[in-house]
Amino acid sequence: MTQQAILVLTTGGTIDKAYFDALSEYQIVDSGIPALLREARVAVPFRVVEVMRKDSLELDDADRAAIAAAARDAAETRIVVTHGTDTMTETAKVLASQVPGKTLCLTGALSPARFAETDANFNLGMAFATVQVAPPGVYIAMSGQVFDGLKVRKDREAGKFVAL
Amino acid sequence: MTQQAILVLTTGGTIDKAYFDALSEYQIVDSGIPALLREARVAVPFRVVEVMRKDSLELDDADRAAIAAAARDAAETRIVVTHGTDTMTETAKVLASQVPGKTLCLTGALSPARFAETDANFNLGMAFATVQVAPPGVYIAMSGQVFDGLKVRKDREAGKFVAL
Amino acid sequence: MTQQAILVLTTGGTIDKAYFDALSEYQIVDSGIPALLREARVAVPFRVVEVMRKDSLELDDADRAAIAAAARDAAETRIVVTHGTDTMTETAKVLASQVPGKTLCLTGALSPARFAETDANFNLGMAFATVQVAPPGVYIAMSGQVFDGLKVRKDREAGKFVAL
Amino acid sequence: MTQQAILVLTTGGTIDKAYFDALSEYQIVDSGIPALLREARVAVPFRVVEVMRKDSLELDDADRAAIAAAARDAAETRIVVTHGTDTMTETAKVLASQVPGKTLCLTGALSPARFAETDANFNLGMAFATVQVAPPGVYIAMSGQVFDGLKVRKDREAGKFVAL
Repeated sequence: MTQQAILVLTTGGTIDKAYFDALSEYQIVDSGIPALLREARVAVPFRVVEVMRKDSLELDDADRAAIAAAARDAAETRIVVTHGTDTMTETAKVLASQVPGKTLCLTGALSPARFAETDANFNLGMAFATVQVAPPGVYIAMSGQVFDGLKVRKDREAGKFVAL
Repeated sequence: MTQQAILVLTTGGTIDKAYFDALSEYQIVDSGIPALLREARVAVPFRVVEVMRKDSLELDDADRAAIAAAARDAAETRIVVTHGTDTMTETAKVLASQVPGKTLCLTGALSPARFAETDANFNLGMAFATVQVAPPGVYIAMSGQVFDGLKVRKDREAGKFVAL
Repeated sequence: MTQQAILVLTTGGTIDKAYFDALSEYQIVDSGIPALLREARVAVPFRVVEVMRKDSLELDDADRAAIAAAARDAAETRIVVTHGTDTMTETAKVLASQVPGKTLCLTGALSPARFAETDANFNLGMAFATVQVAPPGVYIAMSGQVFDGLKVRKDREAGKFVAL
Repeated sequence: MTQQAILVLTTGGTIDKAYFDALSEYQIVDSGIPALLREARVAVPFRVVEVMRKDSLELDDADRAAIAAAARDAAETRIVVTHGTDTMTETAKVLASQVPGKTLCLTGALSPARFAETDANFNLGMAFATVQVAPPGVYIAMSGQVFDGLKVRKDREAGKFVAL
């Protein structure tokens, strides 16, 4: 628990969705993650980098390679990745194989951070703690639980993540 | 990270403060922790027990002994304690000496959970992750950081927790 | 300002939109209007009736006739109508011709009531005051302003209502 | 309903109370009224002037004279006054006798605007509509109702305003 800088890579997903009346639709927007960290009064050094801004159903191999490269090339060894929930486990696999020796935790939200009621703040808190406490590896923090990133799936119907 | 039930002991503190117009003052009320866990869509088994409802400046030795007893006597080995921030470190010391072999994490909030902007959800998320990931011991999760519960102090003027 | 019961007719619109992760889309849901009135600590007698649950772009003549009938047939003479913003002015015209002798105020929101930041509460407050204070007629309360319901349009690009 | 500029005079009260952990107490702070008006997407011209920052139990005759002078001397004829609820009716009497020919509406909140659940937005919306729609005079908008400012009292036990 030595205090080391934390890197937050944002990639889009429900956590960063907003609603636009002019279009009558939601879109992923400027990441709200820095605002969430201010609200949480985070006093450890951190850096937020927007890698992309996509619904996770739209991510392809090149996108996942870009996320992995951003994590691997960074100076930080403790890395939080905010991500859409639908393909979070696929990105976890890529990170596990391509980013050795670092502690990574993916998280996101089932309800947008801009909602009055959202799991975004809690999930981001879980991810921040996980990268400080857990040994190197890839984790997923969702549904109140910290999972091994390679042993978890999203149960879309039940609206939660469950261990394999 | 085997899924085991988590116990949440609530003791009061700013995290559970509300404002009463009829009295023109803040008071600690029915714990809002269960509502925060619903909002976070926590799907792991958990149990919330209200041990007391006090400002942490009012806690005495008997209160701390009661908190330690509740933690020690519980079946759960992963225990989150919500607590006022002013004497959180004192309670951490008592828990460290009186509750062996369990993973405990104290947390609280600098801004009440009932506020629109609050660190409560994030902090509770950090504590939930810590008791799942960390080895047995006593931790404090505040200010975006997971601290060894015996090596941390609150810097009241700066409004944050810092490592000793 | 004699205290008389207020009728709230809900018809759908952005004000009642929620986000469903399982579908990755917004949908209009159980009206949140009763919750907004509780939050506002409304102590005057009121009644909320759901007439329909539609995006206002989907409303047709039969829908508008149904809204007008609900307003005309009600015992109350002070009626708030929550409504999508895109065709709010069209419904205002129908109400003006088909519901004589009552004070009606249409309102809605540019940002869903379930968002942390929303104009829903303020707009509903404007509508509640308008039906208590204004003479019989049809009004629209949006963008911080109370408009004659027949002399207003939505400026979609600017994201606000403006007087004709 | 000609669009004319609205003046908002802030005087303090619960609506502008925040909580300070460093002091373990609440205090009235920089007015949150401008933020509430942005959130409401108010598009009519308005001006916010802080007259004072007091709990309304602390207001004396000189304070009320200052509020009346600010209202009387302003160019605007539609004036919203945010005010603590405990002595709101006393200030209404002073405004009624000292500010002729203008439409004034006092409002406030039973729960601070900074809370996740608050009547502040709704009440401010009621006041904005009232000064646009009502004839000259002094009104109080609270508890979902627009009252004649001279015929209303706060029922402290019941936590609401009631007509005399």
